[in-house]
Amino acid sequence: MITDANVAPLHAAPLASTLGVPDGDLLVIAPGEASKTRAEWARLTDAMLDRGFGRDSAVVAVGGGVVGDLAGFVAATYMRGVPVIQVPTTLLAMIDAAVGGKTGVDTHAGKNLVGAFHHPAAVVADPSVLGTLPEWELRNGLAEALKHALITSRDELGWLVGHAGEVVTPAKATSAAMGELVVRNVRVKAGVVSRDEREGGLRKMLNFGHTIGHAIEAAAAYGMPHGACVAVGMYVEARIAEMTGVARAGFAPTVAAALDALGLARVPAVPVPAAVVAALTHGDKKARGSRAEYALLHDVGEPAAADSGYSMPVDDSVVARALAECLAG
Amino acid sequence: MITDANVAPLHAAPLASTLGVPDGDLLVIAPGEASKTRAEWARLTDAMLDRGFGRDSAVVAVGGGVVGDLAGFVAATYMRGVPVIQVPTTLLAMIDAAVGGKTGVDTHAGKNLVGAFHHPAAVVADPSVLGTLPEWELRNGLAEALKHALITSRDELGWLVGHAGEVVTPAKATSAAMGELVVRNVRVKAGVVSRDEREGGLRKMLNFGHTIGHAIEAAAAYGMPHGACVAVGMYVEARIAEMTGVARAGFAPTVAAALDALGLARVPAVPVPAAVVAALTHGDKKARGSRAEYALLHDVGEPAAADSGYSMPVDDSVVARALAECLAG
Repeated sequence: MITDANVAPLHAAPLASTLGVPDGDLLVIAPGEASKTRAEWARLTDAMLDRGFGRDSAVVAVGGGVVGDLAGFVAATYMRGVPVIQVPTTLLAMIDAAVGGKTGVDTHAGKNLVGAFHHPAAVVADPSVLGTLPEWELRNGLAEALKHALITSRDELGWLVGHAGEVVTPAKATSAAMGELVVRNVRVKAGVVSRDEREGGLRKMLNFGHTIGHAIEAAAAYGMPHGACVAVGMYVEARIAEMTGVARAGFAPTVAAALDALGLARVPAVPVPAAVVAALTHGDKKARGSRAEYALLHDVGEPAAADSGYSMPVDDSVVARALAECLAG
Repeated sequence: MITDANVAPLHAAPLASTLGVPDGDLLVIAPGEASKTRAEWARLTDAMLDRGFGRDSAVVAVGGGVVGDLAGFVAATYMRGVPVIQVPTTLLAMIDAAVGGKTGVDTHAGKNLVGAFHHPAAVVADPSVLGTLPEWELRNGLAEALKHALITSRDELGWLVGHAGEVVTPAKATSAAMGELVVRNVRVKAGVVSRDEREGGLRKMLNFGHTIGHAIEAAAAYGMPHGACVAVGMYVEARIAEMTGVARAGFAPTVAAALDALGLARVPAVPVPAAVVAALTHGDKKARGSRAEYALLHDVGEPAAADSGYSMPVDDSVVARALAECLAG
C-alpha cells in the first residue's frame, strides 16, 4: 500500500489495518507534486523488491493524484506490471486521475513526461473522505467536473450548476449530490477513455482548458493548484475559441457563469505574465511543430475538430491576445 | 537512435547516416549489462526531452539485448509510450529479445525486475551483421535457438542439429542456413508470444532452462554469458524433469547431444557452487511462495503442466541433487 504522510493517519493506516496489511508494507511518501519523481519511483520499487514482493502482488494506492500517478507507475513497471487498485481520497483523483490509466512522474522538463498507461484493476471511491480535504483541494476537483460537463452536454452542465451549493465545500462530503457528482463524472471520464484509450482522438477533449492551464501552472512555478489553473485555462480557451470563430458567441460567458457558480476564479491568484504563459504553451506534450495544439469547443457539448483528432493548432498571436485580455482580469 | 559504443561505428552510425538521423540524435551507451539501469534510462529520457522530441517521435534501437531492452523501456515510458523499432545486431536479440515486447532494466535485486511490455512497431534483422560478432556472443543465440527447438518439435530440433555446422560460427553469417535460422526462430517465438502476450501460461515455456540459467548467471556474478548459463540450465532442468518423472528417460541425453552439436558446454566455465545456485533460484521472478517454479518438458516438443500454466514448483531437494550431479561435470 502506497500513500502520503497526510493521508496515512487519516485513511491509509486504518484501511491497511482493516485489510491486514503489515505496518512495514505501508509505504509513505512526502505529500505534494515534488514526490512525483523518478527517484521516488525507484525508492518505492526497491522497497517492494527488498520486501520480496513477486509478480503475484498488487499495489493499493491511497491518496490524491500524486500518489495515484506515482504508485500507478510503480505498478505499471514492477516486474513489467502488477495490478494497481486505486483508492482516491481527493475529488480530483476520484473523478479524473483514478480513471483512465494514465500513470507517470515529472522530470525537470515538465510534468508527466515519463510514464505508462496502466488501468487500475479496481477504483474504490468513498465520497465521505472528502470531508477531510482543504477547500482549495475540493475546488481542484470541481474544475475538472466543470470541464467534463462542458465537453459533454447542456444537461450535465445544468445539473452541476444547479447542485453547486451541495458540492462546493468539504462540509458537503456526505451529501447525496456529492455522491452523484462522483458517479456522473466517472461515467463521463470512463466513457471518453473507453472510446479512445491512447489519446489518438476523442480523449484529447479532456485537454480542454489544459494547454493554457498547464502553461499557467508552469508560469506560477507550480505554486497554484492544478484546478485553479485549469479554471483560468478553460475561460481563456473559451475566449480563444470565440476569437478564432470556432465557438459561437456567448460560449465564454457561459463558462464564466459556471465558474462563478462553483466558486472558481477566472483570474490567477498570483500574477503570471501573459507572455510567459504564451511561451510555455509550446512545452506541452500536445505541441506538434511550432504551434501549440488546443482542444476547443463550438459550444457546450460540441467538441470541435472531430475530423482532425479533436485538436487544432492556434496561432500564437491569437493566444497572446486572449491571454492579455483574460489575465488582466 | 539508441546504440552502444561497440555497435555505433560498425552498424548504427552508417544506418543513422542512411536514414538522415542527425549526429546529435544518436545516443550511445556503454556496452554491456551494466548499462541496463534506471540511471541510464533516465539519462536517455532526459536527452530526448532536451532535444525536444514529442509524442510523435520514435526510438530506433540498434544493438543487442541490452540496447533493445533499455531503449525499449525508454520508448515504453517516454510520454507514456512512443513506438520503438528494434534493429537487433546479435543472434540472441534477433531471435529472442527483439520479439515479444519485453523491455526493462536491472536493479540491485536482480535482472529485468523493472520494465514494461512494449511491442516493437517493426523488427529489422539483417543476418549479415552477425559476421562482426565474437564467437561467444553467437553461442548466446544458439542456446536460445536450441531452447526454441526443444519446446517446439522433433522437426525443429532435427533441422537445427542437422544444420549446426552452417550456423555455428560468425564466419557463417551470410549462409542460407543462418537466414533460415533467424526466420524459424522468430516464427517460434512470435507464435508463442502472440498466443500469450502477458506470460499467463504458454509463454512460460520460453523459461525452459532459465530458472537454473538465471541462478547460475547470478552465482557467477554475471561474469558468464547468458546463453552459456541457459545451456547449462537446460541440461540441469532436463535432469530435474527426468528425476521427478516429468520427462521420459532419455530426454536429458537428447539435450546433451544437441548441446554438443552446437558447441555449447554442459558445465559452467567458471565454478559455481551448487548450493549457491539452488539458493538463487528463489530470487527468480517466477518464484511464488517458497519453492521455485520450473517450465519443464515431458520430451522434445511436449511441454509439461499445460493445466497449471506451463509452470510447476519443484522441491529444493530434487533441485539440489540435479545441480550436484550436473555441475560436477
